[in-house]
Amino acid sequence: MLVSGTPYRTIWLHEESVRIIDQRRLPWSFEVVDLHTVAEVAEAIRDMAVRGAGLIGATAGYGMWLAAREASTPEELRTLAESLICTRPTAVNLSWAVHRQLEAIQETGFGDRVANARLTAEAIADEDAAACAAIGRHGLEIIRDIASRKPGQVVNILTHCNAGWLAFVDHGSATAPIYAAHAAGIPIHVWVDETRPRNQGARLTAWELAQQGVPHTVIADNTGGHLMQHGQVDLVITGADRVTRSGDVANKIGTYLKALAATDNGVPFYVALPSSTFDWTLRNGVKGIPIEQRGAEEVAQMEGVTASGSVETVRILSPGSPAANYAFDVTPARLVTGLITERGVCPATEEAICSLHPQASSAIPSAHLS
Amino acid sequence: MLVSGTPYRTIWLHEESVRIIDQRRLPWSFEVVDLHTVAEVAEAIRDMAVRGAGLIGATAGYGMWLAAREASTPEELRTLAESLICTRPTAVNLSWAVHRQLEAIQETGFGDRVANARLTAEAIADEDAAACAAIGRHGLEIIRDIASRKPGQVVNILTHCNAGWLAFVDHGSATAPIYAAHAAGIPIHVWVDETRPRNQGARLTAWELAQQGVPHTVIADNTGGHLMQHGQVDLVITGADRVTRSGDVANKIGTYLKALAATDNGVPFYVALPSSTFDWTLRNGVKGIPIEQRGAEEVAQMEGVTASGSVETVRILSPGSPAANYAFDVTPARLVTGLITERGVCPATEEAICSLHPQASSAIPSAHLS
Repeated sequence: MLVSGTPYRTIWLHEESVRIIDQRRLPWSFEVVDLHTVAEVAEAIRDMAVRGAGLIGATAGYGMWLAAREASTPEELRTLAESLICTRPTAVNLSWAVHRQLEAIQETGFGDRVANARLTAEAIADEDAAACAAIGRHGLEIIRDIASRKPGQVVNILTHCNAGWLAFVDHGSATAPIYAAHAAGIPIHVWVDETRPRNQGARLTAWELAQQGVPHTVIADNTGGHLMQHGQVDLVITGADRVTRSGDVANKIGTYLKALAATDNGVPFYVALPSSTFDWTLRNGVKGIPIEQRGAEEVAQMEGVTASGSVETVRILSPGSPAANYAFDVTPARLVTGLITERGVCPATEEAICSLHPQASSAIPSAHLS
Repeated sequence: MLVSGTPYRTIWLHEESVRIIDQRRLPWSFEVVDLHTVAEVAEAIRDMAVRGAGLIGATAGYGMWLAAREASTPEELRTLAESLICTRPTAVNLSWAVHRQLEAIQETGFGDRVANARLTAEAIADEDAAACAAIGRHGLEIIRDIASRKPGQVVNILTHCNAGWLAFVDHGSATAPIYAAHAAGIPIHVWVDETRPRNQGARLTAWELAQQGVPHTVIADNTGGHLMQHGQVDLVITGADRVTRSGDVANKIGTYLKALAATDNGVPFYVALPSSTFDWTLRNGVKGIPIEQRGAEEVAQMEGVTASGSVETVRILSPGSPAANYAFDVTPARLVTGLITERGVCPATEEAICSLHPQASSAIPSAHLS
């Protein structure tokens, strides 16, 4: 997508290194960083210079190309692979990308590892971008349909957190239909939940949308219900961190509250995701999906820019009061209008999801979690 | 309530001046300020050194005592009264308190105005504190009932924004039952919504609860739904800015989302309010209650304390992105389990509300808003 008018992906090869956008600096500054070693890649993932399921997977893929160059034995390769996997143990795409690389190298032989790993890394990135583009095409039809029912009027879309191109290689999941609709000339406006406590909406989604010239307004997370009550939201689209085979959606904390408000006001609530986000072993998301608790300092502190232009972290919580930080919640399938995947749009039911994904039938749901 | 172990009200007479807590400095520092003139009182209300319906009314009451001393004619008194009323035109209690003072002075005669205004000011403050104390007693029974059904276990109460003693003269509305339960020895824990964009939860409610020694945890506003799904909330209590005769509740933005989650999870959702908060002219809150839009800078910026201890405001929004700031939302009566008033607890229905408040029958609902 565009940054200051120039098309970018979130990760790409540059000469003999892997180039990324340092997302920790956004939106205050746009900085491109070269990663030359597996250690630097691991650090970039661990420190969240790159974040988001799709992008973490692609970064691990490119990291394995660097690993193929650094390793002189299969054992060394495996050790480097492990060092990548352990950077963020809960990120499913990370270990998936590393194992895909290891299997490809095993198939073609250790001697061809560098050229092979480079091809596989590029394939992982291209497939991620292609899946998001397909999500955009399918989601575009939903927006086009709403636009056709209010000709000449702006379609208002609410989104939560950042499921944008910054979280993938390109296009994003929740943002892909938005970018597609904007490109198709449909008049749209996006309500961007700021998404406390880490403010991915106010920092990343707002920045993305501004760079593409998509009209948008940032709101406190408390606001969406009021807007829906007053007909100011035509459609909600969020991303997902994990979706069960029956359509329960784990996503950034607060998603569930927006789904409740959408249902209460008859506003369609869609979740956009590449199929890799499904967890075929689970049915009941509220019971089965573990919810990460993160450090209280994310609630207690806030990073921003002072009047003099320096980036500063301030404490915003009353001294002496504790805080808790639950990172995700689960939206039950009954509140989800539909899922937008690269294979098409389907209702959030086990039957519809599995008929779109034949691989689901070979996975066995965990009995105690179903 | 207690501040560093010493009992305080939010406003009181001190020698020949009116003493307040400067709430703009909380929670970073506790500063008591003397107001000597009507102009200083007006400034304190306008600048939100004092805030909250009950406290604004009480401050206006004391301001009229200063006005009675400054005015040498009834015309001067009326001009000073006007200067108080226009500080925050939407605050119903403000003009109510000023008019009560004017009527009392008219009854007893201009010559007795100073002694009379002082008595009336004290009466307004005492009545506010007494109403909140009564809300506490009635709400305590609700908490006691929940506690009796889970003996030996902590009762978890979620609240939104600050409807605490800082918003009234003492006790608060939503916090009054909490303080009463804590005083009665019932083990409680309060989930405090930080309440973006102005963070009244993280700043004021957290500070209040810590000062009284009430166990509590501050959470991002996005969190309550997840906690309710997992049985970690036994009861929600919020305050209200305006309640219609049929029980629709205007309160801080985001209240509606918590009421939806409470209903979805079978968690009781109570609203605590002095009866002065009812608007007898309205039935349909979503249609009839105007929602104030405030400056975008409250969403775009955040005040906090730096590592070096200075209070600093930082910009937290991506540069070039606009923000919108809706201050309140309306929770339909169907989502409210009950209203806790100084007259008792009642369901959020017109019949129950009006039978508890005979004065409602003399008010005529606005036809176009009902």
